[in-house]
Amino acid sequence: MQSWIQPLLALAWQRLGEYLHETQLLGSIQSTLYWDQNTRMPSAGAAWRGEQLSLLAKQLHARQSSSQFEGLLVEVRAEFEQARLAGELEPSQVVERARNLELLEQDLRRQQRLDPALVGALATAKAKGYARWQQAKSTADFSCFAPALQHLISLRQEQAQQLAEQRSCWESLAQPFEPDLTLARLKELFAPLRQRLPDLVEEARAWTRSRAVSLGWDLHDTTQQDLCERLLQGWGRDLSITCVARSPHPFSTTLGPQDFRLTTRVVPGQPLSCFLATAHEWGHSLYEQGLPAQSHQWFAWPLGQATSMAVHESQSLFWENRIARSKAFCECWWPHFASVGAPLSSADELWLAMNPLTPGLNRVEADELSYGLHILIRTDLEIALLEEGLPVEDLPDQWNQRYSNLLGVIPDNDGEGCLQDVHWSEGLFGYFPSYLMGHLISAQLSEAMQQAIGPLEEHVSHANEHQLLAWLREHVHPIGRMMNAEQLVEHVTGKPLSSKPFLDYLEDKLERLREL
Amino acid sequence: MQSWIQPLLALAWQRLGEYLHETQLLGSIQSTLYWDQNTRMPSAGAAWRGEQLSLLAKQLHARQSSSQFEGLLVEVRAEFEQARLAGELEPSQVVERARNLELLEQDLRRQQRLDPALVGALATAKAKGYARWQQAKSTADFSCFAPALQHLISLRQEQAQQLAEQRSCWESLAQPFEPDLTLARLKELFAPLRQRLPDLVEEARAWTRSRAVSLGWDLHDTTQQDLCERLLQGWGRDLSITCVARSPHPFSTTLGPQDFRLTTRVVPGQPLSCFLATAHEWGHSLYEQGLPAQSHQWFAWPLGQATSMAVHESQSLFWENRIARSKAFCECWWPHFASVGAPLSSADELWLAMNPLTPGLNRVEADELSYGLHILIRTDLEIALLEEGLPVEDLPDQWNQRYSNLLGVIPDNDGEGCLQDVHWSEGLFGYFPSYLMGHLISAQLSEAMQQAIGPLEEHVSHANEHQLLAWLREHVHPIGRMMNAEQLVEHVTGKPLSSKPFLDYLEDKLERLREL
Repeated sequence: MQSWIQPLLALAWQRLGEYLHETQLLGSIQSTLYWDQNTRMPSAGAAWRGEQLSLLAKQLHARQSSSQFEGLLVEVRAEFEQARLAGELEPSQVVERARNLELLEQDLRRQQRLDPALVGALATAKAKGYARWQQAKSTADFSCFAPALQHLISLRQEQAQQLAEQRSCWESLAQPFEPDLTLARLKELFAPLRQRLPDLVEEARAWTRSRAVSLGWDLHDTTQQDLCERLLQGWGRDLSITCVARSPHPFSTTLGPQDFRLTTRVVPGQPLSCFLATAHEWGHSLYEQGLPAQSHQWFAWPLGQATSMAVHESQSLFWENRIARSKAFCECWWPHFASVGAPLSSADELWLAMNPLTPGLNRVEADELSYGLHILIRTDLEIALLEEGLPVEDLPDQWNQRYSNLLGVIPDNDGEGCLQDVHWSEGLFGYFPSYLMGHLISAQLSEAMQQAIGPLEEHVSHANEHQLLAWLREHVHPIGRMMNAEQLVEHVTGKPLSSKPFLDYLEDKLERLREL
Repeated sequence: MQSWIQPLLALAWQRLGEYLHETQLLGSIQSTLYWDQNTRMPSAGAAWRGEQLSLLAKQLHARQSSSQFEGLLVEVRAEFEQARLAGELEPSQVVERARNLELLEQDLRRQQRLDPALVGALATAKAKGYARWQQAKSTADFSCFAPALQHLISLRQEQAQQLAEQRSCWESLAQPFEPDLTLARLKELFAPLRQRLPDLVEEARAWTRSRAVSLGWDLHDTTQQDLCERLLQGWGRDLSITCVARSPHPFSTTLGPQDFRLTTRVVPGQPLSCFLATAHEWGHSLYEQGLPAQSHQWFAWPLGQATSMAVHESQSLFWENRIARSKAFCECWWPHFASVGAPLSSADELWLAMNPLTPGLNRVEADELSYGLHILIRTDLEIALLEEGLPVEDLPDQWNQRYSNLLGVIPDNDGEGCLQDVHWSEGLFGYFPSYLMGHLISAQLSEAMQQAIGPLEEHVSHANEHQLLAWLREHVHPIGRMMNAEQLVEHVTGKPLSSKPFLDYLEDKLERLREL
C-alpha cells in the first residue's frame, strides 16, 4: 500500500509545484513590465503598457482562483494528511508543507470570496483614483480627488465585508501587508511612540534650530553614482545576479530566482539622498536574495516569499539607518566623500549631514525621529476614514491640525499635505503602519544581533558589514512566510515585539549627536 | 436585411480585431522580455527568463493556431464576402480588409500545417544548436557544432515538406523574411553583383592598400554617446516615444504603438562604430514609427507590420550608408567630431574614416562594397546545404575557398569563418539575402527620392534630413504588408527592383573617394 501512496502523493504535490511555478512565471513577467515602465519606458508607452499589465493581471487572477487550482489544493491536502498520518514524511517536511498549504488555502479563500464585479470595480476605481490624485496633487486641489477617494473607501469597505473575516474593516485590508495584525495590537505597539516621539522631536528642535535644512552643497550626478557603486561593492554586491538603474521613485524588485533589481534617483540639492536610497533599496534586495527561495525549491511557494512589509522595511531601514547613518560608517566614508569634493571638514560633519533631525512636511524625506509621527497621523486618519465615519471632505483639515500638533508644521497646500502620498489614490489602506513597524523590528533585531556578535559599529568600523549580513542570512532571511512578523521577531530575539529598542536607540543617538 | 447584416459584420470583424489585439499584447510582452534580457538582465537571470519566454511562446502559438482563431477567420471571411457583394464597403475598405484577411489566412495555414511534434523538436534543436555554436565558436571547433547543424538542416527540410507549398525547400524557409521571393528571382537579382562586386573590391584595394584597417584613434564612451544623442536629436527623435540603451549587439524593437526602442554599443578602437550603429538602428525604428499602425488602427493587424526584412534593412541602410556615410554629412559633422577631440584635420578625413573599403573576414564590420560578397557566399552555401546535398562537414572548406576567391582573405580559423554568424546556429535559413536586397532597395528608393526632391546630399548639407524622412513617410512606410518588397519598390519607383542603382551608386562613390 505504501509504495502505491508515495508516488501518488509526490505526483499531486509535484503538479501543485508546477502550477505555482507557472503562476510565478506570469507574476515575474508582470514585475518585469513594471520595472521597465519605471526605468526605461518612454512616456507615451504608458497606455499600451497598461493594457499588457491588465492582460497579465487577468491571467494571474484566473490562475489564482481557478477551480483547477482549488481541486489541486484539495487533492494535495488529502494526500498530505494521509501521508502525515502514515508517518511517511520527515518532521521538517510536515511543518513546511503544512505551512505552505495553509497559506495557499488562505490566499485562495480570499480570492474566491471576492465578487468578480467588485474586483473589476476596484481596478477601475484605482486607475481613476490615481489619475484624479495626480491631477489634484499637481493643482493642490483636494476637491478634485475627494469623490474618487470616497468611492474607493466604499469599495474597500465592501471588500472587507465580502472577505467576512473575524476582523474589522481596516484589519482585513491590512492583512496582505501585515498578516495577522490586529488594531488592538497596533495601538499597543504605537502607544509609547505616540507619547515619546513628540518630546524627542521637540528636544532635537531645540539644538538643531540653528542648522539649515538644505545642506547648501551638492555632488555631481556621476559622482553620486560612483559613490553608490563603491557602497554596493563594499557590501558584497554580486554583479551576476543584480542590476541597478534609475527611476523617479527608488524601489527594489525580484524578477527571478537569480535576478534582483533596484533603482535609485539623484535629487538636486540633496547630495546624500541617492546614497541613502541605495543603502535602503539594497537592504530590501538583500532580504529577497536571502529568502529560502534561493537556497531550496520554494521560489514559487509561500515559504519562499517575504513574510510582511514591516519585516521587508526592517531590512532596508537596517542598512540605511543603522549602518549608513551611523557614526562609525561616517568615519569610514568621510574620506570617500571628501575625496570627491564634498565640503565636509570632518567625519562628524558627514554624520550630522546624514542625520538632519529637522521635522518637515514630507514623509519620504523625514529623518528617523519624526518619521514615526508621519505614520501615526496617516494610520489614525485611514482608520477614521474606514471605520469611524470621518467624512472625506474633513481630511485636509484633520491632516493639517495633526501636523501642527505633532510636528509643529502646517502645509501651505494639500499637495504637500494630505495629497503627498500615492497610497490612498489607489485605495491602499492598511499599508502605512508597516513602515513604522519596520523601524521597531529593525531596532529589536539590531539589539539581538549586537548581543550575538558584539557592537554593530565596531564591525562597521572594520568594514566588516558582511558579518552583519551573515547574521541576518542565518537568522532572519531564511524564515520566509514560515512565521508572521511578530512571530519572527519573538523567534529571533526571544522577546515580543516592542517599541522600546527603537526608542532607546533614538534617545542614545540623539544624545551622541547633541554631544558633538 | 441590410440593417441586420451590417452590425453582424461589424461584430465579427471587431471580435477578430480584439483577438489580434490580445495576441499582439502577448507578442509585445515577449519583445519587452527580450529587450530587458539584452539591455539589463544580470547574467544569472538567463535560466528563469528562458522559462518566461517559453511560456509566452506556448501561449502565442496556441492563440495563433487555435480552432477559435480559425473559426473566427472563417466567420469574418464569409461576412466580408457577403458585405463586399452587397456593396456595403468602401473600395479602400475592400482592398485593405481583403489583404489583411488573406495574410491572416496564410499565416494560420502555415501554423496549422506544421506537426506540433516538429515544432517542439525545432525549439529543442534551436536551443541546443545555439549552445553548441557558442561553444564551437569560442573554441573555433566546427566539429563540435556540425552534428547540431546537420540535425537543424534535417528538421528544416522536414518543415518545408510539411508546409507543402509550391516552392523549393529554401524558398519555403525564406518566406517569413521575404514573402513571395523565389530562387530564380534571387539569382537574377544577384547575378550582376556576383559579376561586378569582386572587380570593384579589387579596384578599391589598389588605392586603399596603403590605409590602415584600424583608425588608430578612439573616442571616450561618453563622448560617443553624446555624439549619438546629437545625431538623433538632429534627426527628429521624439523622446516621448523612444528609448536608447546599450546591448552587446545593436538592435531595434517596437514594444507598443508608441514605444520604440533601440540599442547601440561602443566598440573599443572603433570610434565610429557606435555612431553608425545608431544611424542604422534609427533607420529601422523610423520605419516602424511610420508604419500604418501609428496613423490608424492596424497595429495588431498584418497591414500594420513591416513587409519584409529587406525593406526593413533598406531603411536602416539608407540612414547609415546613404546619409551618415555621405560626403555632405561628413562636412556637416566634421566640426562636431573635431570639437570632441577626434584627430581629423578635415571633413574629407572623416569621410574616408566612414568609408574604409578594405575587405575583411567579418560580415558585420564589412563596408558597403564588400558586404554583398559576404552575403553571396552565405546564400550560396545555405542553398547548397538545404537543396544541393552539400555535406555539413565540407562547410568550412567551402567557406574558406569562397572567401579566398571573392574577397582575397582566408580565415585563420572557423571561429572567424563559417561560425561567425548566429543565424545557422538556430537553423535560420533564408534570412541572409534580405541584407543584400536591403542595399538594392535602399539604392533604388534613393534614386526615386532624388528625382522627386533633388540631390539628397544637398538636403543633408542644409541639415534638412527631415525632408528625406518626409518622403519616406509619405511613400514607403505607410505601405505595411499591403505589398511585398518587390511590389513596394515597383510601386514607389515605377521600375522593377534591380541591382543597377546600387552598383551605380557604388561606382560613383568609389570614384569620388578615389579623387580625394
